[in-house]
Amino acid sequence: MSKIISLEEAKKITGANITPIQRTEILKIKDMLKFNVFADRVLADDVVACLNIPPFDRAAMDGYAVMSEDTQKAGLENPAELKFIASIFAGQRISTALKNGECMYVTTGSVLPVNANAVVMIEDTKRDGNNVSIFKSLKLLENIGKEGEDIKKSTVVLRKGEILTPAKIGVLAAIGVKNIEVYSIPKVAIFGTGNEIIDVGKNLTPGKIYDINSYTLAAVIKKAGCIPVVLKIAGDKEEILQKRLEEALQYDVVIISGGSSVGEKDLLSKIVEGNGKILFHGVNIKPGKPTLFGNVNGRPVFGMPGNPTSCLMNAYIFLLPALRKIAHLPFERKIVKAKMSEKFISKSDRHLFVTVKLENGYAKAVYKTSGAITSMSEADGFIEIPTDKKVIEMSEEVDVHLF
Amino acid sequence: MSKIISLEEAKKITGANITPIQRTEILKIKDMLKFNVFADRVLADDVVACLNIPPFDRAAMDGYAVMSEDTQKAGLENPAELKFIASIFAGQRISTALKNGECMYVTTGSVLPVNANAVVMIEDTKRDGNNVSIFKSLKLLENIGKEGEDIKKSTVVLRKGEILTPAKIGVLAAIGVKNIEVYSIPKVAIFGTGNEIIDVGKNLTPGKIYDINSYTLAAVIKKAGCIPVVLKIAGDKEEILQKRLEEALQYDVVIISGGSSVGEKDLLSKIVEGNGKILFHGVNIKPGKPTLFGNVNGRPVFGMPGNPTSCLMNAYIFLLPALRKIAHLPFERKIVKAKMSEKFISKSDRHLFVTVKLENGYAKAVYKTSGAITSMSEADGFIEIPTDKKVIEMSEEVDVHLF
Repeated sequence: MSKIISLEEAKKITGANITPIQRTEILKIKDMLKFNVFADRVLADDVVACLNIPPFDRAAMDGYAVMSEDTQKAGLENPAELKFIASIFAGQRISTALKNGECMYVTTGSVLPVNANAVVMIEDTKRDGNNVSIFKSLKLLENIGKEGEDIKKSTVVLRKGEILTPAKIGVLAAIGVKNIEVYSIPKVAIFGTGNEIIDVGKNLTPGKIYDINSYTLAAVIKKAGCIPVVLKIAGDKEEILQKRLEEALQYDVVIISGGSSVGEKDLLSKIVEGNGKILFHGVNIKPGKPTLFGNVNGRPVFGMPGNPTSCLMNAYIFLLPALRKIAHLPFERKIVKAKMSEKFISKSDRHLFVTVKLENGYAKAVYKTSGAITSMSEADGFIEIPTDKKVIEMSEEVDVHLF
Repeated sequence: MSKIISLEEAKKITGANITPIQRTEILKIKDMLKFNVFADRVLADDVVACLNIPPFDRAAMDGYAVMSEDTQKAGLENPAELKFIASIFAGQRISTALKNGECMYVTTGSVLPVNANAVVMIEDTKRDGNNVSIFKSLKLLENIGKEGEDIKKSTVVLRKGEILTPAKIGVLAAIGVKNIEVYSIPKVAIFGTGNEIIDVGKNLTPGKIYDINSYTLAAVIKKAGCIPVVLKIAGDKEEILQKRLEEALQYDVVIISGGSSVGEKDLLSKIVEGNGKILFHGVNIKPGKPTLFGNVNGRPVFGMPGNPTSCLMNAYIFLLPALRKIAHLPFERKIVKAKMSEKFISKSDRHLFVTVKLENGYAKAVYKTSGAITSMSEADGFIEIPTDKKVIEMSEEVDVHLF
């Protein structure tokens, strides 16, 4: 292992060497209705409105379209009396123009007839045959939605980099856009190393354990808005590791779990070094000291600890923010304040990440044993204990980063 | 429209008439690796461990497996001298038992040989041919992962109702589970009504507007962890509405947009009443007054306002929490504090939802015009103004519910 660096340095190096994906693709708006189409797509180009919205002057209420000047003196005691000449329901066309002294029944969303400049709410009227009494004086444009008042044709309505929230998808639907250019979803190759690792589904023979990291990493990658691509476990042989790395380099990011700690069979750093560059190997954190980060053929390569707890904890610390950045998606940790349920003494000179469970405002450390996956699965989040802090007192307030 | 009820009553009625889905299905663990398989599945049954984890006593460090009693007097100045007899790499089996005075090289995760009861870290040793100097006294079980210390065979490791987070998926992988029983993902049928509404992708003829609500609702349904099923637009004819409702009742929840406000062509309440029961129709909120909620054949039916802004705002207020509950998923609104950027006066006697944009800690009301989809798409969240509050002063602190 090369020089051990601090957490801050490691974050700086990953930050400086991770860039948002530039590959784009065309997304059909219709596909956004499908459940299995990932929701949080990011626009790779500005969207210009090809229509005015509303596309025509329309009634904003159910009532009567009138010429406002005909109602100027109208009031509760003194209604304006207008002649009903037609009904226009939403979705219908009308060619008849309105004349003074006339009105037309309209529903919300109806096209306004020519010359109409206000709509009186149905509640403010009374109809008797073809005579409609209007009990209210209408202002010019009252209860009318003017063409283009929401969106003006030829203006930019959504910008490059914006995430397609439900409302923004609504804007695309409003202007009838069929296709948009979005950033491609980053594909993240994962492979496990280690001769002790076997696929879930196979029989467990003595000395072997199931591949946990591909599952936890794939889940984190999905949460990051990226596509996991799980490759076959590589074992510990150099030529297989080399082959698997080459295969993984077809994707946007490479994650290798295991094989990054010091030991006779540690080949990972050799392989990364041989194909590209190691940017760091060894971070002064616990768990996760052997974490490796490098660059091969312009692809970020993460070497995650083989220990499932360390691997998953490091995925939350390093991978999740890095992958969100690559995917053009924001990253924010949700933090809640809690009190420590008992005194905690750090016996390590490394920056500690301690999994905790929240109970009635108290954070209780969940630690069973190194590598216990249950110390992650039973936790709600983690607290950080920097290298210069050795003790957290009972009831001391801590920031819990929720998973 | 029937009696207008308060927001609190409406929430109480939806809460009391919405129950979590009971239908379950078998999920293959392998499928959780796939990108287009929804991540947040909920266990419909307890999971019992069929294995001890670790499945065998193993080395927790790279180093030498020893009998701790052989190192009792060892120290930096006074190493214990042991005979190297074999190497065990992770994943290998070993039949040779350890004897006093001997040691075996092990890597993290290696099976321990019989009689070994501690592992000394490689950093605390020095090897010269087959002689290994041990510079540290080892405690019993030091650096050893005992069989079952993480997960004990036959114990419940995950419980019914738990969401499969990355760590919990890791637990399932650890014990090699192939299939689990999870709650089915609720299927939510949506259809728009109104003769003015046409499908995105078709040509916009005069008087028509594109179907926005199916898109925004589908996006909210996806965020709720449910499956949107978009049916054909129903127009305004009673027999088509009836047919579409029957089609929609094949799914778990029915959402109809439009057709719920007072007007000559308002058929929705008639159709719902004719097939089942209206639980409320009309809520004292703005936007969203005409919102309808009912029950047909045991299926919750939501009638959302046709106005895209009202529809989407109401989807956040009523639908999102209701659907999350049906899907067995938690619901929590993310709230941030902000100061109002300018004085806001409520001119309504209804409970107001006002969309706001956040800028440097200030909340600025985003309101263009009734139905403007851009007043949703440009907003970061909304504030609530209860019926008894009429004015928010400039710089007054408000709770912004983020979208």
